[in-house]
Amino acid sequence: MNAQQQLIDSGLRAWQFNADRVESFFVALSEEQLQQEIAPGRNRLIYLWGHLAAVNDALFPLLGIGPKLYPELDAMFLANPDRHASSVLSGAELKSVWGRINQTLWTAFNKWSAADWLAKHTAVSDEDFVKEPHRNRYSVMLARNTHMAFHYGQAILAKPRA
Amino acid sequence: MNAQQQLIDSGLRAWQFNADRVESFFVALSEEQLQQEIAPGRNRLIYLWGHLAAVNDALFPLLGIGPKLYPELDAMFLANPDRHASSVLSGAELKSVWGRINQTLWTAFNKWSAADWLAKHTAVSDEDFVKEPHRNRYSVMLARNTHMAFHYGQAILAKPRA
Repeated sequence: MNAQQQLIDSGLRAWQFNADRVESFFVALSEEQLQQEIAPGRNRLIYLWGHLAAVNDALFPLLGIGPKLYPELDAMFLANPDRHASSVLSGAELKSVWGRINQTLWTAFNKWSAADWLAKHTAVSDEDFVKEPHRNRYSVMLARNTHMAFHYGQAILAKPRA
Repeated sequence: MNAQQQLIDSGLRAWQFNADRVESFFVALSEEQLQQEIAPGRNRLIYLWGHLAAVNDALFPLLGIGPKLYPELDAMFLANPDRHASSVLSGAELKSVWGRINQTLWTAFNKWSAADWLAKHTAVSDEDFVKEPHRNRYSVMLARNTHMAFHYGQAILAKPRA
């Protein structure tokens, strides 16, 4: 591996570390446990999991991979706060949704060269990208990785009851 | 900037984003607000801030920059859980400590070439590093960045009262 590949490898390992611990934490919970709030009056665990799935799913169009796999996640877990959607996915459904999103992202991530990673994401114009070349796919991936860590830190505050 | 420098720049921007929002959040709080818990029975804000300072300070020896600037943070915010140390720093003290740690880290980070970033950290042996070259400084920096995001996500759950 050359230096570029090593730097990308470090970023991908950091991604995988967070994606894996998010998955391990949530898939182990029962439907009842997923109804618990992370703190009194705050988001439920099911909402945080769905929110992470929705934000990661939005990486497909943002990184130019393709359309969202589950656009219905938006209204449930992103555009609206917890308890505002009339119904949300169950834990069993989210397990499958989460798995497919992250497996598909991972496959795309592992195909990209350094030039692919440093290409612009789709929410920045050609003109702006000339001035701000850091608005590239790699930066987006690192930011979404810290987004996972941010909410994982919250999720583990809910000590699920049996 | 070549591709290596761009990838490092993305990592450093991600670091700065989290270090800045952690600082902005905590420095705005009064000593009284820093005594609040993030959730009933959980860590106080002052502890989380000190914990982030202690973990970032430990980067100096881990990355081979030099000794810790404030080794006394360990017993207060790392080796012991909240409320177990006989006394901890005040918010005013932590503001100064946090600022110096992060400014000094930032200066060191911005001097390193790609080869410097991909060099091994000090907690891995030469033999292990041959087999596991991803145990480099860049990986450590990315991991400590998600560590900041993890606890920042918790800290903002405490809506400080006036």
